[in-house]
Amino acid sequence: MSKGEQQWIIPDGYIPPVSSGQLQSHESVCVLNLSQEEVTVTVNVFFEDREPLLGMTAAVPPQRTRHIRTASLNAGGEHIPVGVPYAMEVIGSAPVYVQYSRLDATQAENALMSVMAFPVK
Amino acid sequence: MSKGEQQWIIPDGYIPPVSSGQLQSHESVCVLNLSQEEVTVTVNVFFEDREPLLGMTAAVPPQRTRHIRTASLNAGGEHIPVGVPYAMEVIGSAPVYVQYSRLDATQAENALMSVMAFPVK
Amino acid sequence: MSKGEQQWIIPDGYIPPVSSGQLQSHESVCVLNLSQEEVTVTVNVFFEDREPLLGMTAAVPPQRTRHIRTASLNAGGEHIPVGVPYAMEVIGSAPVYVQYSRLDATQAENALMSVMAFPVK
Amino acid sequence: MSKGEQQWIIPDGYIPPVSSGQLQSHESVCVLNLSQEEVTVTVNVFFEDREPLLGMTAAVPPQRTRHIRTASLNAGGEHIPVGVPYAMEVIGSAPVYVQYSRLDATQAENALMSVMAFPVK
Repeated sequence: MSKGEQQWIIPDGYIPPVSSGQLQSHESVCVLNLSQEEVTVTVNVFFEDREPLLGMTAAVPPQRTRHIRTASLNAGGEHIPVGVPYAMEVIGSAPVYVQYSRLDATQAENALMSVMAFPVK
Repeated sequence: MSKGEQQWIIPDGYIPPVSSGQLQSHESVCVLNLSQEEVTVTVNVFFEDREPLLGMTAAVPPQRTRHIRTASLNAGGEHIPVGVPYAMEVIGSAPVYVQYSRLDATQAENALMSVMAFPVK
Repeated sequence: MSKGEQQWIIPDGYIPPVSSGQLQSHESVCVLNLSQEEVTVTVNVFFEDREPLLGMTAAVPPQRTRHIRTASLNAGGEHIPVGVPYAMEVIGSAPVYVQYSRLDATQAENALMSVMAFPVK
Repeated sequence: MSKGEQQWIIPDGYIPPVSSGQLQSHESVCVLNLSQEEVTVTVNVFFEDREPLLGMTAAVPPQRTRHIRTASLNAGGEHIPVGVPYAMEVIGSAPVYVQYSRLDATQAENALMSVMAFPVK
């Protein structure tokens, strides 16, 4: 099996509700699949005051990356709400690598943050 | 017991004293509790030139996240002072995951930073 | 052999296509070589929808750092395209340390992000 | 002995030469000493094209943090030059925790980045 980890944690998720200037506020869950097989990535979302939103999926082809916009994910038509603090668990059907980045364009001049997701071993 | 770690370190804490523009300067200690039990998180604060401020607590329900604003914490009525460099030790009563983020809105256009806290094993 | 790791992963690569203001949008792959020998660093790039771009190299002398601009890398005259999401694998001929930083100067007021690359063991 | 690590690596060091607006461009090496003894921290600096600058030191009292401005360090009167890419090795006389943050105030509206330093085990 390819190297990497199958379970990654991102405690600080947040989709900024406002955008101004040239760019759109967004978050990306960036996944690298170095294996020779397609990997299905499942994103489970945990909130502060409501039940988890589980089982949103995305496919990452072999030897490819996908920079998944969190706002594009859905499970049964349900999306991650904007403007709400949440946390993510990212599970690969095979080992992958995961980084999380956020562009906040609330103000016209942007702010960026990024972390490597935390690998669960 | 659920996976995760019980002791996490954040060496660079700082609550920006000034805000301008649309957003409020703040720091968040983002905790994810994947277990089936409520976890009590204890935050201990260490300064450059005074005694530590120990034993501030917050509860994180099972299968929930909390994005704890550092300015909201207190122990016996004492808060983390703004505009002062400090460091944090975050201890869970059971394993959790911890990320630290800061929004600096000193200037109207914001700056963001984020790190995964350092897990002590 | 010197300490460090030989394989590092950076899932979130992106060269911002626009610059304004005083500074130039760019990414840097920052490599530290603490050994007594020159290390050859090979950068392999993975995309969302095309074949990988493999085998771009840079040399890091002993006891030196190099902050490699991703836009300066090439393999057979081919460069990493701007404005395209990608991911990187960084392989040292001997152990090194790798950090990734991006300056986004799309707007005149800049945004910065940085992560330690993920070490593969 | 207290937990933590004695050797930490920060590959992307850079002191922005310009400041504008309310805040001063700077980097901080943030050290937390959870032990009961003072720890001496030694910072060794590696450049792209000159000999290393070794042996700059700072003291961190027991149960204290220090957010060390890199521009304040010196060894025999020599300082880290501004506007030059470099890398750091941080060595504690006993285990500590280390995070690195940079505020870039080249433009009036600031940019922030932060990483946990990489622990060498």
